[in-house]
Amino acid sequence: MTPPQASSNPWLLAERTAAMNPSVIREILKITERPGVISFAGGLPSPRTFPVAEFAAACAKVLRDDASAALQYAASEGLGPLRELVAQMLPWQVDPAQVLITTGSQQGLDLVGKILLDKDSRVLVETPTYLGALQAFTPMQPKIVGVACDDNGVDVAALRDAVRAESTRFLYVLPNFQNPTGRTMPESSRASLSQAAGEIGLPLLEDNPYGDLWFDTPPPLPLAARNPDGCVYLGSFSKVLAPGLRLGFVVAPKAIYPKLLQAKQAADLHTPGFNQRVVVEVMKDGFLRRHVPTIRALYKSQRDAMLSAMKQHMPAGVEWNTPSGGMFLWARLPQGMNAAELLPKAVDKGVAFVPGAAFYADHPDARTLRLSFVTASVQEIQTGIEALAKTIEENRA
Amino acid sequence: MTPPQASSNPWLLAERTAAMNPSVIREILKITERPGVISFAGGLPSPRTFPVAEFAAACAKVLRDDASAALQYAASEGLGPLRELVAQMLPWQVDPAQVLITTGSQQGLDLVGKILLDKDSRVLVETPTYLGALQAFTPMQPKIVGVACDDNGVDVAALRDAVRAESTRFLYVLPNFQNPTGRTMPESSRASLSQAAGEIGLPLLEDNPYGDLWFDTPPPLPLAARNPDGCVYLGSFSKVLAPGLRLGFVVAPKAIYPKLLQAKQAADLHTPGFNQRVVVEVMKDGFLRRHVPTIRALYKSQRDAMLSAMKQHMPAGVEWNTPSGGMFLWARLPQGMNAAELLPKAVDKGVAFVPGAAFYADHPDARTLRLSFVTASVQEIQTGIEALAKTIEENRA
Repeated sequence: MTPPQASSNPWLLAERTAAMNPSVIREILKITERPGVISFAGGLPSPRTFPVAEFAAACAKVLRDDASAALQYAASEGLGPLRELVAQMLPWQVDPAQVLITTGSQQGLDLVGKILLDKDSRVLVETPTYLGALQAFTPMQPKIVGVACDDNGVDVAALRDAVRAESTRFLYVLPNFQNPTGRTMPESSRASLSQAAGEIGLPLLEDNPYGDLWFDTPPPLPLAARNPDGCVYLGSFSKVLAPGLRLGFVVAPKAIYPKLLQAKQAADLHTPGFNQRVVVEVMKDGFLRRHVPTIRALYKSQRDAMLSAMKQHMPAGVEWNTPSGGMFLWARLPQGMNAAELLPKAVDKGVAFVPGAAFYADHPDARTLRLSFVTASVQEIQTGIEALAKTIEENRA
Repeated sequence: MTPPQASSNPWLLAERTAAMNPSVIREILKITERPGVISFAGGLPSPRTFPVAEFAAACAKVLRDDASAALQYAASEGLGPLRELVAQMLPWQVDPAQVLITTGSQQGLDLVGKILLDKDSRVLVETPTYLGALQAFTPMQPKIVGVACDDNGVDVAALRDAVRAESTRFLYVLPNFQNPTGRTMPESSRASLSQAAGEIGLPLLEDNPYGDLWFDTPPPLPLAARNPDGCVYLGSFSKVLAPGLRLGFVVAPKAIYPKLLQAKQAADLHTPGFNQRVVVEVMKDGFLRRHVPTIRALYKSQRDAMLSAMKQHMPAGVEWNTPSGGMFLWARLPQGMNAAELLPKAVDKGVAFVPGAAFYADHPDARTLRLSFVTASVQEIQTGIEALAKTIEENRA
């Protein structure tokens, strides 16, 4: 055998990698995952909501009755019965042929970016927006522009101005219990956004991982229900069943479904067929109708605990909202403070959060922070919020 | 609610989608999956090799002992114990920190393409090559160029010429029991390829899904073992355990691992943690050392059945090789014949294959065809090859 050649580094990276960066949140989580720290930082569903017994029974049944198919290569579109279940559970007319099963809804973002974004093409996002979407779009080298938002979501006048200025591939929007802000677009805002998008021919990419996690009343109809041909809709089983199976889905208009499917096939051939069968087995007979209300009740009690602890302990000048569902609460420090600078001090006091700046496509508000109320227990929430309030008090300008 | 706006098609597809096409094989499989047709077309491992009882026990154990972690979000790198098992099973010094767990090895191709290929950058592939790699690279819009190959794989003189002509990002190469040809690069060819790549600073992307499926003697050392810093190595659990879990891995030099990891995180956050734990559970205590020999024995007997039926039935002028492992045999029709034109006639006689033309980056040889010997039983192989031989006989020029 010829001795190995010790060559110098021969690797030339693609231009797109220059804009790719490690997730800020991921780096933060490494700091905050110190033992003994109460973390409001991660976006982790409570493991108490995972239907473990049902998964165990379903795994056993799938491997008993259907192992050869479940463990074999499968169709890139996803498993027929799962696509049908998805179509049935959505509140508008969806043909199962429009449903593509993805390896988590993060993959939906990647695939949509691949087929809709060219280098320098323009994509609009909310202010602030889901960090994972920014990461998914970035490799395609688009110009990502934040649209002004208020407590009701996208400011439609600002959107019209933004689209008028330059041609735009789509608006990425998360109308229900948004990550990171927890805010929800009310019916009137959805109606005017939908109308504006239709009028100006602006495609929408609607992401709805949290929509089922409402506390008192269901959110208004999705944007996709209003103009299915003008909207790609992303959904997920991560928050209603469990994230560790990595199952999500895309509902795509017929105009783009074939290209999305080709991108899916090239990306990972198909989403694990075993996982798809297990979830079909768990979901049949209406399991989600019994299970999801228990998640809602748990998360509502934890949101209430957080709101009540905030009210009790936070010093004057701290602002926060009241999310009506989902996993996150959005807060803002008093003038002159910086959430990123506060974080290490908070961790020293045993509590962690995510500074909000990471969630902005542009012009971050350094005073903001995201607090998850779903992973920590009510007791931990009380202790953690008190510690956070004390940190703010001690460090205010 | 404002009435929905029925806009015309607002979707503008990215430029890269123009080159993306449905998989030819996928379309062929739709035709060939007619009931009663003996298919040598798919690349499907035999379900007889799936360790179903072991999977069932592992699922039960993981959900009993470790459900909260197994069903939660997890690290993008993959599960620590699985990365360690991968590093241990490879025949050269691999740091688990260089291992990235992927959603099937197809995802490895997608991620490598993303971080190494710019539009119009040049990538070399074997002649012929794995179709899924062509599909994975295409969205990045490279120029894909086939390098001349012989029965021993890449022709190193042709490679040197190809690289001299123009700067090249990498050579994609599948040295063991290649898909589609079944051929294997002998030691001397690997040594000279490795030396040439080192000398000219050409990165290698080595794909090894079939390396464990040798029949008489193990194949020579991987290329990555000879120059780990100049090679990205892709592996898979699909052929030694089961494809339906979608588990593969990348071993990457430290120079590119961080960007690969960022691309992975953006693509699907992480590969299902449940599946990773199940496979760790199945693999520990050396299960593969007992299990893989049974797959080798089965596939060898089926290869032998195919070779023997070919010898018995094929008319003069048909050529084929003798793969020393893997899943595929490569054949060539007599002069003047076309495998794509023969296929519907063969299907009418109850047998299917994949025409070889789809596997060429350029200059396809229309006489070639790929025959899988792993999915059909020995009896089906005998019947199917006889029917194929008869179809050739009846349709020869």
